[in-house]
Amino acid sequence: MGAGYTLAELASRFGGEVRGDGGVRVNAVATIQNATPGSIVFLANPHYRRFLAETCASAVILTSEDAAEAKVPALVTKNPYLLYARVAALLAPPSPSPRGIAPGAHVDPAAKVSADAWIAPGAVVEAGAEIGARAHIGPNCVVMRGALVGEDTRLSANLTLCQGVSIGKRGLLHPGVVVGADGFGIARDVGAWVKVPQLGSVRIGDDVEIGANTTIDRGALEDTVVEDGVKLDNQIQVGHNVRIGQHTAIAGCTGIAGSSVIGKRCMIAGGVGIAGHIEICDDVIVTAFTLVSHSITHPGTYSGSLPMDATGEWRKNSVRFRQLDKLARRVIDIEKKIKG
Amino acid sequence: MGAGYTLAELASRFGGEVRGDGGVRVNAVATIQNATPGSIVFLANPHYRRFLAETCASAVILTSEDAAEAKVPALVTKNPYLLYARVAALLAPPSPSPRGIAPGAHVDPAAKVSADAWIAPGAVVEAGAEIGARAHIGPNCVVMRGALVGEDTRLSANLTLCQGVSIGKRGLLHPGVVVGADGFGIARDVGAWVKVPQLGSVRIGDDVEIGANTTIDRGALEDTVVEDGVKLDNQIQVGHNVRIGQHTAIAGCTGIAGSSVIGKRCMIAGGVGIAGHIEICDDVIVTAFTLVSHSITHPGTYSGSLPMDATGEWRKNSVRFRQLDKLARRVIDIEKKIKG
Amino acid sequence: MGAGYTLAELASRFGGEVRGDGGVRVNAVATIQNATPGSIVFLANPHYRRFLAETCASAVILTSEDAAEAKVPALVTKNPYLLYARVAALLAPPSPSPRGIAPGAHVDPAAKVSADAWIAPGAVVEAGAEIGARAHIGPNCVVMRGALVGEDTRLSANLTLCQGVSIGKRGLLHPGVVVGADGFGIARDVGAWVKVPQLGSVRIGDDVEIGANTTIDRGALEDTVVEDGVKLDNQIQVGHNVRIGQHTAIAGCTGIAGSSVIGKRCMIAGGVGIAGHIEICDDVIVTAFTLVSHSITHPGTYSGSLPMDATGEWRKNSVRFRQLDKLARRVIDIEKKIKG
Repeated sequence: MGAGYTLAELASRFGGEVRGDGGVRVNAVATIQNATPGSIVFLANPHYRRFLAETCASAVILTSEDAAEAKVPALVTKNPYLLYARVAALLAPPSPSPRGIAPGAHVDPAAKVSADAWIAPGAVVEAGAEIGARAHIGPNCVVMRGALVGEDTRLSANLTLCQGVSIGKRGLLHPGVVVGADGFGIARDVGAWVKVPQLGSVRIGDDVEIGANTTIDRGALEDTVVEDGVKLDNQIQVGHNVRIGQHTAIAGCTGIAGSSVIGKRCMIAGGVGIAGHIEICDDVIVTAFTLVSHSITHPGTYSGSLPMDATGEWRKNSVRFRQLDKLARRVIDIEKKIKG
Repeated sequence: MGAGYTLAELASRFGGEVRGDGGVRVNAVATIQNATPGSIVFLANPHYRRFLAETCASAVILTSEDAAEAKVPALVTKNPYLLYARVAALLAPPSPSPRGIAPGAHVDPAAKVSADAWIAPGAVVEAGAEIGARAHIGPNCVVMRGALVGEDTRLSANLTLCQGVSIGKRGLLHPGVVVGADGFGIARDVGAWVKVPQLGSVRIGDDVEIGANTTIDRGALEDTVVEDGVKLDNQIQVGHNVRIGQHTAIAGCTGIAGSSVIGKRCMIAGGVGIAGHIEICDDVIVTAFTLVSHSITHPGTYSGSLPMDATGEWRKNSVRFRQLDKLARRVIDIEKKIKG
Repeated sequence: MGAGYTLAELASRFGGEVRGDGGVRVNAVATIQNATPGSIVFLANPHYRRFLAETCASAVILTSEDAAEAKVPALVTKNPYLLYARVAALLAPPSPSPRGIAPGAHVDPAAKVSADAWIAPGAVVEAGAEIGARAHIGPNCVVMRGALVGEDTRLSANLTLCQGVSIGKRGLLHPGVVVGADGFGIARDVGAWVKVPQLGSVRIGDDVEIGANTTIDRGALEDTVVEDGVKLDNQIQVGHNVRIGQHTAIAGCTGIAGSSVIGKRCMIAGGVGIAGHIEICDDVIVTAFTLVSHSITHPGTYSGSLPMDATGEWRKNSVRFRQLDKLARRVIDIEKKIKG
């Protein structure tokens, strides 16, 4: 942890206004409820405001609205979570990657590996693959022929980049990710399916994070594209030919069917389904468990989940759902009668 | 790409009727909107008809209804996507697999590996496993003891076949697939769960494709069965003792609970849930995000997802859902009153 | 299978009351419908009662209600499935694990591996990791630096424990599991996302089973916790800072968003979504495909899925759902009118 930084030093690096003693020194981040002296914490969710008075932290990052209640020196900012993210990255930097090709790595002589990249034990790098400067290919990762990994990109472990896919700089891919498996392309013949060759690839931009066990299929003819700055959580399925716009964030367990286009700066919650061949414009928010079955052409928030209830109540109501059209017709009849 | 084929040659191999110059030569497939000369494209989705007049392709595969508008030589057929699939497989065949056991592969001396199979670096083949002729065991795949891999079957990378499971001929399994992990069998004791040993296996037929990160559990006592020609997309969960009938296709993120039986030629969309211990007859279509909570005994199309809406509208309506039974009772009361 | 056990011996080991010849000898378990002589079966689901009269099993485990109809010797108990689980574990024990470090395993000299643990070919154990007595690290598993694996815990294959996570004794993790990948922590800056370092870990208790391709993220600052005796099915996503209470069981494809707390002895069905920052008390049951969007403070059963229907009917009703608030208002108007 080292000697840390004073609050004034943090403000000068990252912005924020110091309230109280700017000379207080912090060397770790913590949660507001469990902090110990020497740590700096943040308050962003009002749910945790009740801990503000009693925190043992040496400093707190918060908004001007909450600052009055702080009992310790504070960094005041409009976006405490963002400022916290920068402070945390400074105080707890990721451990540096080694350099070179480990014994037990399987690197094809026809692969092109930067001298200061790291290829861990059990990793497989096939012919024609290119691994950029300072890239980290973790244990048991597979980089198939012709795949490209950009500078400073980190493949954690046990994940697969299929042939010819590319990922840009400063990417972070977690275990179990699969980039470039065949899309689900099948053509119906009499009584059987014929596979449609999946001849496109996957192109992933810079600064993209992909969560554990997320899968991104290669395009059928052209490429599946994930633009710069996209953040994908775990267990997301991205179908062939999909395009995800810059700085869009998608939470876990969401599935995107083939050929759909998602705009920039969208926020898609968890467990969402996005139908195939549709378009979602920029700056759309979709709440959890929604099926997006048609295109969205206006920025805004969209929902489609059913509210939870005690099972007894739910059962009564869901039976009525199956009679809803009839109920509506009965109301129309009544309206006619009492008008008449 | 080589010299390619004339349109007449393609018609003679795969069927379809030539319209225009049958001597035109193609050596690649492309999308109708981005084709270059020398390529052949298809038109199946009416959404793309607008590109027909201006495509730069040398030839197009389409239906007789669309043929009149084609400006380039055409192959006319009832099912353009199917004919395209065959042409694409001819023009862009998969790269051939090497033969032999790579340095860095871990093959138990008591495994039986066909001389012309390929075991890639980092792959593990345990005792008693059998790898058929021309099978491809990709990098870091694990084939546990006693598992059987049929002729010409391809395991891509980083996937696992557990002990004793079998897969037939010409299969294609994508990265992250798990076949034969224990089913979810637990028996409740006072305040704790007792594991129920999962003693069955998994039997997979011929010509089966399994998408990335899909999991198929072994049976509790008898086997989980996936019949010939089944096509599974990514991130599907198949519970223990399930049987999936021939030529059924299932899209991504669908989950099938234990002991359910799905018929032949069904088409299950993405994000569907199928409850346990139910039966779905042949030729059933289930649309996306539907929970199939009881057996389906008649062929047809079934649905159960909630329609998406702007969040404000959705909130008003979903509150009413929780009062739906009461609303229906009030309508009944009104009907009685205005009758009386 | 060997000579097996008499029914009386089984009753004496595991409880249950013998009806009929306690000297009958069994050496295998089977399903009631496909049993052969020498096997013992169970009847727990009334759906299978029709096979009771004609089973070829040598003995059957069932409740006193069903016992009258048994034609073969029986073990009578209140919980046949539980008694069966114990008998099956006796008659079909898992095959023993080898001991030692296989050639082709990659074990860092600074890892601490118990002398009677097993490290399979292709497994990677990094510096500072500790592998307990009789633990089994299967082929191509990755145990990152500082991770702890308890006694008798079994990691099947191709799965990943990230840096510093810990799992207790007698655990069972199936292929593709990822424990300790970064949680989905991102802070919004102007037009881009800034990663929030994920500095917590994952602590998993004793007797926990985790299904294939399930992912459990590390905490943001404190730890994600899975308590003793928890049973997780396949393809479950557990977000950062989640706590799952003792002996809770969760079925496949369920997703739990960050910072939520689930009580003890809960049963969460498949395809469920649990929102972030909520609490579910002990002894709650949630049925399939429910979105738990707010805290649950009372034990009981909760639901929220839409009932399936033939697509034509479903379409008519789901259109009405989007008009439900208006319909309710019209009913209110009618009520006013006919009162007036």
